[in-house]
Amino acid sequence: MDERVREHAEVLVDWSARVEAGDDVVVSVAEDAHELGVAVAEALGERGANVTTLYGSAELSRAYLKGVEAEVDGDVDADDFDADPAVDRAMFEAADAYLRIGGGRNTTASADVDRPTRQAHAKARQGVREARMDTDWVSTVHPTRSLAQQAGMAYEEYQEFVYDAVLRDWEALAEEMARMKGVLDDGKAVRIVTERDGAPDTDVTMSIAGRTAVNSAASVAYDSHNLPSGEVFTAPYDTEGEAFFDVPMTIDATRVRNVHLIFEGGEVVDFSAEAGEDALADILDTDEGARRLGELGIGMNRGIDRFTDSILFDEKMGDTVHLAVGRAYDACLPEGESGNDSAVHVDMITDVSADSRMEVDGEVVQRNGTFRWEDGFEE
Amino acid sequence: MDERVREHAEVLVDWSARVEAGDDVVVSVAEDAHELGVAVAEALGERGANVTTLYGSAELSRAYLKGVEAEVDGDVDADDFDADPAVDRAMFEAADAYLRIGGGRNTTASADVDRPTRQAHAKARQGVREARMDTDWVSTVHPTRSLAQQAGMAYEEYQEFVYDAVLRDWEALAEEMARMKGVLDDGKAVRIVTERDGAPDTDVTMSIAGRTAVNSAASVAYDSHNLPSGEVFTAPYDTEGEAFFDVPMTIDATRVRNVHLIFEGGEVVDFSAEAGEDALADILDTDEGARRLGELGIGMNRGIDRFTDSILFDEKMGDTVHLAVGRAYDACLPEGESGNDSAVHVDMITDVSADSRMEVDGEVVQRNGTFRWEDGFEE
Repeated sequence: MDERVREHAEVLVDWSARVEAGDDVVVSVAEDAHELGVAVAEALGERGANVTTLYGSAELSRAYLKGVEAEVDGDVDADDFDADPAVDRAMFEAADAYLRIGGGRNTTASADVDRPTRQAHAKARQGVREARMDTDWVSTVHPTRSLAQQAGMAYEEYQEFVYDAVLRDWEALAEEMARMKGVLDDGKAVRIVTERDGAPDTDVTMSIAGRTAVNSAASVAYDSHNLPSGEVFTAPYDTEGEAFFDVPMTIDATRVRNVHLIFEGGEVVDFSAEAGEDALADILDTDEGARRLGELGIGMNRGIDRFTDSILFDEKMGDTVHLAVGRAYDACLPEGESGNDSAVHVDMITDVSADSRMEVDGEVVQRNGTFRWEDGFEE
Repeated sequence: MDERVREHAEVLVDWSARVEAGDDVVVSVAEDAHELGVAVAEALGERGANVTTLYGSAELSRAYLKGVEAEVDGDVDADDFDADPAVDRAMFEAADAYLRIGGGRNTTASADVDRPTRQAHAKARQGVREARMDTDWVSTVHPTRSLAQQAGMAYEEYQEFVYDAVLRDWEALAEEMARMKGVLDDGKAVRIVTERDGAPDTDVTMSIAGRTAVNSAASVAYDSHNLPSGEVFTAPYDTEGEAFFDVPMTIDATRVRNVHLIFEGGEVVDFSAEAGEDALADILDTDEGARRLGELGIGMNRGIDRFTDSILFDEKMGDTVHLAVGRAYDACLPEGESGNDSAVHVDMITDVSADSRMEVDGEVVQRNGTFRWEDGFEE
């Protein structure tokens, strides 16, 4: 076995999920994630944890939903499913941790399942989802050929990409990100400015007063549930100005390019996209909260050096900033207060490696990708 | 998808497990059983059942146990595992049915795990096992290259073999087996006689008075939990005489050939084997019950026409009879009575297609493989 697979498993079990002896751990293994599954099982045996292994197969899920579609007359709705089936609910209620290892055979395996069917299925299982989110859950991927293909990369090249992103000195990165969190926690207003030739500029301000940033250091100990991670995020409000997102993205299987949003009074009042504008419009029209921001995130994982059309990696890339329309995370809000509410949460990313600055309360924190505590920072 | 895979899934879900709308079904999919898993998921969706899919990977289990071995000083015992981990127990307690689809990548994937480790793991999980056995459980296999190799067959050849065994007219076979069950239920004594050139003969008698035969028709509706099945079995006692088993078998990874057992007063008093005699001796010395019979079984699935070194198929083969030393099944015993008790249950098979007869209470029921209700039966 590739030594990097073992190291990935150890980071997942020890740094990310903080598994201890006696923990009941549910592991979901995607179709082509067998090898990482094996390494994780061995690590869990060594730690004295208990393991239950699910088969996280998108092809099986698709087949199940196609079976339901075949039996239901017309659109499938949530009533066509049992609400929160007993086995899944009992399983996650009894679990201490849930490790989801992605890496299927085909990233578009569910493309022919009707969207209402998928939404109805998810809706009927909200209790299961909540029980799962109440565990120490972590989501990661094993580098597979299907993911390499989605990223437009050769297989070996993609493996290197994934391990560069995952096998970090997380302790050191967490310390650096703690500085960024400190700046955001103490700050009241953020302004992001970019200057680009021939494309709309970004000049957007938002309030973050009273909000708490999350140091997303790829560990449940930091309220962070993705491996890799490496971003600091908070929940902004009262957004004004315009923002341009030059990083390609996929919304619900539609490729979206060069999104431009105009904010007034905290809401998107105008928008455009060079490709996928309809998909963007659908998102913004979902509900009232879908036109307000739910997240400002600052990517700080410099192990990630290119876009791969996967939000797990893209939004954590060093020298990027992302804004999400839709739902805010509770962890960013004062106890008991609820932030922007929406059924959606869609991240959009801007490259800030050049011709850009981020200010907090008028002071430049990052210029052209370099933070003010780094060598080469220009005031 | 091969139409036979879909048919296999339908037999499993409908005939074997009798799944109904609203049932909570746990499906375990082995490493190379993906395709049958997909077909089963689709069938469960069509029936309106709920599905939870486990990854039944022997390589993952091996890795977990090797991890435990690495951390434990000396032999692993049951105390090194948590007793009946909460997730697995909760899962099976909430399940209506459990469908186990075998078909790994390597039938000897756990060969380097110490036997005490495997036994300790099983012992620590007896409560989980009982919860699983309390569901409507069915065990089957998807034809894989590893199983073809174990059977000494080409892949396509093995696929045909499996589908011939599985895709039967189960209703008709169940009716025929009901006749055999009737004969055994009404009978008091069974005598099996074979005559072979140059090999020890079988001439063995056993009592079956008061015992109930199971019509093992590959359906939970018949207390039958294997697909394929196709045997009628009961729990004999007071065995006398000698029995010769000419069908090759594997006991705990050791090949055993041409076993000869001599019974007096219900117990094995002498034995021999041309190969694997030590493994046989270990079995017979396990405990007191290991020298008494726990089962007499009559193979009636004529879709199975050759031995493949897999008990799931071998013992159901038409024109065979098997005897098992060790544990008897409760279903064969009067309510509340316990039959032969043992930690082991090892089946041994005799070819009765020629030069043989089986008598019940002095009357010939099967001669040279032909039952008395079949054409060509010679009184």
